[in-house]
Amino acid sequence: MRGTAKIRIGIYGYGNVGKSVEKAVARNDDMSLEAVFTRRDPNSVTPTTGVKVVPSDEILTYKDKIDVMVLCGGSATDLPEQGPEMAKHFNTVDSYDTHAKIPEYLKKMDKNARMNGRTAVISVGWDPGVLSMMRSLFISSVPDGGNNTFWGPGVSQGHSDAIRRVEGVADGIQYTVPSESVLNEVRDGSRSEYTMAQKHRRVCYVVPKEGANRDTIAGGIRNMPNYFVGYDTEINFITAEQMHREHSKMPHEGYVFRNGTTGTDERNHMGMHIKFDSNPGFTASVMVAYARAAFRLFGEGDHGAKTVFDIPVSYLSKEGRDRLIAELL
Amino acid sequence: MRGTAKIRIGIYGYGNVGKSVEKAVARNDDMSLEAVFTRRDPNSVTPTTGVKVVPSDEILTYKDKIDVMVLCGGSATDLPEQGPEMAKHFNTVDSYDTHAKIPEYLKKMDKNARMNGRTAVISVGWDPGVLSMMRSLFISSVPDGGNNTFWGPGVSQGHSDAIRRVEGVADGIQYTVPSESVLNEVRDGSRSEYTMAQKHRRVCYVVPKEGANRDTIAGGIRNMPNYFVGYDTEINFITAEQMHREHSKMPHEGYVFRNGTTGTDERNHMGMHIKFDSNPGFTASVMVAYARAAFRLFGEGDHGAKTVFDIPVSYLSKEGRDRLIAELL
Repeated sequence: MRGTAKIRIGIYGYGNVGKSVEKAVARNDDMSLEAVFTRRDPNSVTPTTGVKVVPSDEILTYKDKIDVMVLCGGSATDLPEQGPEMAKHFNTVDSYDTHAKIPEYLKKMDKNARMNGRTAVISVGWDPGVLSMMRSLFISSVPDGGNNTFWGPGVSQGHSDAIRRVEGVADGIQYTVPSESVLNEVRDGSRSEYTMAQKHRRVCYVVPKEGANRDTIAGGIRNMPNYFVGYDTEINFITAEQMHREHSKMPHEGYVFRNGTTGTDERNHMGMHIKFDSNPGFTASVMVAYARAAFRLFGEGDHGAKTVFDIPVSYLSKEGRDRLIAELL
Repeated sequence: MRGTAKIRIGIYGYGNVGKSVEKAVARNDDMSLEAVFTRRDPNSVTPTTGVKVVPSDEILTYKDKIDVMVLCGGSATDLPEQGPEMAKHFNTVDSYDTHAKIPEYLKKMDKNARMNGRTAVISVGWDPGVLSMMRSLFISSVPDGGNNTFWGPGVSQGHSDAIRRVEGVADGIQYTVPSESVLNEVRDGSRSEYTMAQKHRRVCYVVPKEGANRDTIAGGIRNMPNYFVGYDTEINFITAEQMHREHSKMPHEGYVFRNGTTGTDERNHMGMHIKFDSNPGFTASVMVAYARAAFRLFGEGDHGAKTVFDIPVSYLSKEGRDRLIAELL
C-alpha cells in the first residue's frame, strides 16, 4: 500500500452495480466505504455491510468526506443528469455506456470537473472499459491488421427490454451469443472485420401472456429493426417459473482479437477473453480500481474527464510502482 | 494522425530486432527512419529499405536529427552499457529483459534521462511488455485471485545457449512448451499460482558432435541446475541439416490468466493470449509503438525512465484521443 489514509468511497445509486461496488470496496484494503446515497426512502435500503444510507438530496453535505463518488446509475436517464452535476462537487467514476453519446457526455463531464478542480473517470467496466483498452493497445501493437470484438454468451439489457415491449409478451430475456464458426475463424487468424450480426446470434426466452399468439410474438421480435432484423434469432417460449429459476443470474463474456502482419509476412495474433458470473460484479470491481486512479490523478492536480485510454495501469494498482516493476514487469 | 511532422527514428544495433524495427517503422506512417547505427563495418550492413548506415561512434552527431533512438542490443552485455549512455543524449526505447536486474537498470536510465531532459522507455516488447501490463491490470481488476503466465511454444535463447555449452553438443535449440493440462486447469478457472516448472515442459533438439555419446549429452542437459533440473525435459537428436531446415524460424506465444472472486462468490476469468510467427517481429512492432509514446512524453516534458505500467495506451496510438474515444471506447 502506498499510504496509510484510506480512500473514502461513496456510492450513488444502490441497484445491482451499487450493491456490487459495496462488496468490491470491501476487497480493497486501501479503501473505506463512507456512505450509500439513494433517491429512495433510506429506510427501504439495507446494505449488506451496514454502511450508512443517506438520502441523495443530502449528498453535497458529504463534499469533504468522500474522496471518490462511484456513480452507479443507468446510462439511459440517470447518468446524463447525475454525472455532470456530481462532477462539479466530487471526483467520480461511472460506467456510462451509451456508445454513440460518449463524446457528448465526456465533454460535459470534462467541463464541469475542470471548472471545479475535480477528476471524473468515465465509461469504465468491461465494455466500455477493459475491452476498449485492448482494442487500442492491439491496434498500436500491430498496426496492419483487423480487430474483432465478441460479446457473450450473456444478457443484453437493451434487447431484453425490447422483447418485453412486444405485444403479447409477459416477460422476456435475450442472450447475445458469439457465432462459434466466426469466433473460430478469428481465433485461427482471420483478419477480416465482421459485423455485429455476422459475429452474434440472438437467443430469446419469452413468457407469453395468456392467450397470446406465439407466431405473432415471434414475428414481432424477428422483425424489430436495429434489434433483431438481420440476426440469426432463436426464440424459446418458457413459463414464468422457468424464467425465474433459469434466467436470474447475470453471467457474461467478452473477447477482443486482432490478427495482423508485421515484417514482410509474419502473422500475429492478440486475444483477450474475460468471463464472469456477474456482469455488475465485474463492472463494479473494475470501477473501484478506477476510483483509485481518480483519487491519484486528483491528488496530482490532473483534473477533467478521463477514460481508460488516458490512465496508466499503475494508477489502478494499490501496490507502489517499485513493487509492480520488481514483481510484475 | 496528430500532426504533420514525422517522428524521426534511429535504430542502434542491426541484429534480428533491429531489422524488424526497420520494417515496423515502415508500417507506421507518422514515422520516418533516419539511420541505422552499427558497431560493425557499415559496408557489411545492407538494410532492406536502403536507409543510411552510420558507424556507432558517430551517433552523437545525430543528436538533433533523431527524435527516438530504438536500442536493439541484447540485455546481457549491450544494453547495460549502451542504454544509460544513450539516455543522456536521446529519447530511447529498449527491450531490456533481464528480470532480476530491471530495477537497477531502471534507476540508471532514469537518472541519466532526467539529468539530460530525455525520456527513456525501458523493457518493452511482449514479456516484459504487453504481458506485464496485463498482469498488473488483471490484479487490479479482480484483487482477490491468482495469476499465471505461460510462455511458448517458443524458443528460449538462454536455454538454447545453455545446451550448446554441454560437452559433445555441436548445435542445440530449446523450446519452452506450456503444459496442456495445467493450461487447461487455468483456462477452466483454477486460481492456484503454479511454478514455472509445473507450467512448462522443455523440448530440446540437439545436433551431437561426431562420436559423442548421446546418453552423456542427455544427462548433461537434464542435470543442469536452474535450467533443466526439475523440468519435464524431452531431448531429440537431429542432424545439422534438420536443425537448419526445421528450426530457423522464431515463432512464440504467451498467455496471462487471472481467476478470482468478486462479490460473495462470483467467479471471474481474465485471459490474454498472444501468438506470432516472429519473436523479434512482434517485439519490434511493440517497441515502435512505445517510441511514439517516448516522443509524446518528451514533448510534454515528462522525462526519466518509464515502463509499460506508467504509460496510458493512448500514447501508443497514432490516432488522436478524440478518435479513440469515438471509435474504440
